[in-house]
Amino acid sequence: MIEETSKENIELRIQMASRAYQFLKNTTIKERAALMNAVADQIEALGEELTQIAHVETSLPLARLVGEKARTIGQWRSYAKAVASGIYSDPRIDLAQPEKQKGDLRKYNIGIGPVVVFGASNFPFAFSTAGGDTASAIGAGCPVIVKAHPAHPQTSQMMADAITNAVKEFGWPEGIFSHITGTSYEIGAYLTQHKDIQAVAFTGSFNGGKALFDIAHHRENPIPVFAEMGSINPIFALQHLIENKAEALAKEYISSLTLGVGQFCTNPGVFISIKGQSLDRFIAAVRNEIQEIKPAKMLNNGIYESFEKHKSNTVKQPDTEIIVTTETEEGKASVTIIKTNAQSFLNNPVLSEEVFGPFGIIVICENQEELIRIAQNLKGQLTITVAATSDDVRKNAELINLLKDKCGRLLFNGMPTGVEVVYAMQHGGPFPATTDSRFTSVGPDAVKRFVRPISFQNWSDEFLPEELKNENPLQISRIVEGQVNTGSLKLETV
Amino acid sequence: MIEETSKENIELRIQMASRAYQFLKNTTIKERAALMNAVADQIEALGEELTQIAHVETSLPLARLVGEKARTIGQWRSYAKAVASGIYSDPRIDLAQPEKQKGDLRKYNIGIGPVVVFGASNFPFAFSTAGGDTASAIGAGCPVIVKAHPAHPQTSQMMADAITNAVKEFGWPEGIFSHITGTSYEIGAYLTQHKDIQAVAFTGSFNGGKALFDIAHHRENPIPVFAEMGSINPIFALQHLIENKAEALAKEYISSLTLGVGQFCTNPGVFISIKGQSLDRFIAAVRNEIQEIKPAKMLNNGIYESFEKHKSNTVKQPDTEIIVTTETEEGKASVTIIKTNAQSFLNNPVLSEEVFGPFGIIVICENQEELIRIAQNLKGQLTITVAATSDDVRKNAELINLLKDKCGRLLFNGMPTGVEVVYAMQHGGPFPATTDSRFTSVGPDAVKRFVRPISFQNWSDEFLPEELKNENPLQISRIVEGQVNTGSLKLETV
Repeated sequence: MIEETSKENIELRIQMASRAYQFLKNTTIKERAALMNAVADQIEALGEELTQIAHVETSLPLARLVGEKARTIGQWRSYAKAVASGIYSDPRIDLAQPEKQKGDLRKYNIGIGPVVVFGASNFPFAFSTAGGDTASAIGAGCPVIVKAHPAHPQTSQMMADAITNAVKEFGWPEGIFSHITGTSYEIGAYLTQHKDIQAVAFTGSFNGGKALFDIAHHRENPIPVFAEMGSINPIFALQHLIENKAEALAKEYISSLTLGVGQFCTNPGVFISIKGQSLDRFIAAVRNEIQEIKPAKMLNNGIYESFEKHKSNTVKQPDTEIIVTTETEEGKASVTIIKTNAQSFLNNPVLSEEVFGPFGIIVICENQEELIRIAQNLKGQLTITVAATSDDVRKNAELINLLKDKCGRLLFNGMPTGVEVVYAMQHGGPFPATTDSRFTSVGPDAVKRFVRPISFQNWSDEFLPEELKNENPLQISRIVEGQVNTGSLKLETV
Repeated sequence: MIEETSKENIELRIQMASRAYQFLKNTTIKERAALMNAVADQIEALGEELTQIAHVETSLPLARLVGEKARTIGQWRSYAKAVASGIYSDPRIDLAQPEKQKGDLRKYNIGIGPVVVFGASNFPFAFSTAGGDTASAIGAGCPVIVKAHPAHPQTSQMMADAITNAVKEFGWPEGIFSHITGTSYEIGAYLTQHKDIQAVAFTGSFNGGKALFDIAHHRENPIPVFAEMGSINPIFALQHLIENKAEALAKEYISSLTLGVGQFCTNPGVFISIKGQSLDRFIAAVRNEIQEIKPAKMLNNGIYESFEKHKSNTVKQPDTEIIVTTETEEGKASVTIIKTNAQSFLNNPVLSEEVFGPFGIIVICENQEELIRIAQNLKGQLTITVAATSDDVRKNAELINLLKDKCGRLLFNGMPTGVEVVYAMQHGGPFPATTDSRFTSVGPDAVKRFVRPISFQNWSDEFLPEELKNENPLQISRIVEGQVNTGSLKLETV
């Protein structure tokens, strides 16, 4: 039973967040990084109880949860390190030039204001209450109000307590972090509509993300919404690769498609290739690979029911045929792979919709032109994979150039599941994969979502933030008069 | 008489822009910088004819236009230099670590796609056809379709020809730049709605910018709109400063308020201070300063009529009183300064609306609390100026901390008009000053509006863009494994 946080309490928490923002704005990147490391320590200290509870609440295997916990701690620490480096403060200094009547201008990034984070169900640690969104918003200098995902309430509460403890330990305002619980749609809408909220981060379904995106746009002061709304992550398998490696590719494909019962936003739901003996071999190998896979419990009943509904709607579309489906068991998800032709895939939008779970569509093209037509008509994706030899790449330059417009991450072989938490990760893509292709929700660059620049003109050193003082007390890299500068400024005193 | 570009021709130009995007995506930052410098040369070569024509079309003084032309050329050259430096490519490389099953990930920014630019009337060179928006979009790697401002058609055509000539000189696709003319609202709506357009830049009125922002949100694939919609640029004059310098401040204020017949988006429309003898001295000095100002022609008749309409609506609001108004002449703008009290300013939204032209409101507060209430209730601004001594700043820390939330540029004394084209400039602010406070439309950072990141996973050097190749052929600064790295990568070959 999920307790619904009352309207009065939500209002109070928003007011606390607004006051905490006035405090956070004047903390330095080093101070915020220290808080983030303290949160990491708190999470680390939670021990086995956390993974046990999450296991019961999500049905995710313990080993996976242990890994996800380590990843979450790693996120706090690596984002802290990145924030402390000054990379997201992006300081720029242009000195006064009295002979040109040009003033002293100094710019850096401040936190955008209180942020609402909607936790995801499929990553109870890494993308939920104390996940990457919360870490990157706090790193940016923004208080966070988490709307907890109702599918893992105890896990969420433990994570919330870890953050709250770290904030208390620092003696910083409690409003830096708030934990709101409830199952009603209204809570999310209320938070997103509130005039004091300045940004929203969301990971989940298209309908959920789009609804928040619309609410935020129609406010008196519209605010950014960073919604990651899933993807079908197509694989384009080109001629020589499939010819050389049909069986190995099938093995890799099935392994990625069924990983975590298919409950990843980078799950490769669509496999596209040109008809022929090699593709026939691939399909035969898929049939073979899939035999042994047992039905498995999904994250929760809502997700399971939605999976069954979307799957049955997809398999009954014309010009589709089930290639293979695994052993079934009531209440558990089995794996299904269907095939269709390029024309149907192009003309029937149902076939391009994400079926969240272990479900794949193999799209069989007549020729190269159909492959390009599919690329041209693709909606925005988190990832696209090109399964190819180097020779295939050389021969498909036009196709590959087109695919860049449709995704945030373009893979040369391998599979899209497995999202590394590094600087070079882009977890985001053109609409409808996300609401804003210019930002990532994985990797330290996620911090960028929650900052905005402010310029100070003609302020004396005393009143400037540490990031912009002459002395460069934080010893960060700054752009001074257009050049990278890591030192302090020796200005002649007037 | 403005020719309306036909729908067929617009459609053709969008198709050409889309094809040109496929080309531009594969140009390097150095190549695009070279094109930008060629555009600067073309504009420079236009000679006196350009300023003469612009003078006739806009009524702006020749000296100002000569300066604006130099600024525009400077924009193309300085943005070119910044683009070539790689700062907006933001390359990040995380190498493969086979023992961790971690792939090779490399990310950089590519142009977001074809961009529509709506030129402004008040800067026929710097913020119009060949202005900062066009320069920054091309620098980012985006083809540009300009919807010319109908108030200076010949000027616009000359600038368009300059860009087109440079593109031709390079032998690059003509679709990199298109010039659409017309006066109908439908043209702008059609361009903003078109599925192949990926971003919009606009400088002008709130109604115009907000309409485009809404259209872009309601597309099947929503796109960013960067609309700079003006501002009232408040000045908060604090106790000691006004006490020490009432007369000098009045002189500076009137000079800024009436500069260019008040036709700047950074025009300081509102002056806020606490009642008392010093403020009385300021008001008396304002009356005195303004005497000699002659009525002047505005940019065009539409702007003049709008100024007269908004001014007369504002002066008839309750609790306002005209302090001074200058000599009038039919068809020309005179200067008007009114006063009101803080309560009326807080309660009557009409008094916070921009009156584009030489018009100012002095808001007289009873006390410090009212000053803070006004700060709290302010809408987003391009600039806020604090006229203060250092001692005033120390005593008003809460006020100044609040003002940071309401603007893109915070000035310590001086006046907000005069927007330097440098890295540290922020010309943008919270809604409704602009639609996106995270970006600037002045200074090389304007390029950031038109890029998005893309990650390449496991691609071999041959297929990577120059920005990401091991050798670092462009010799740019990159983040490699989390560290700044300006060299090439010596990787062991496997």
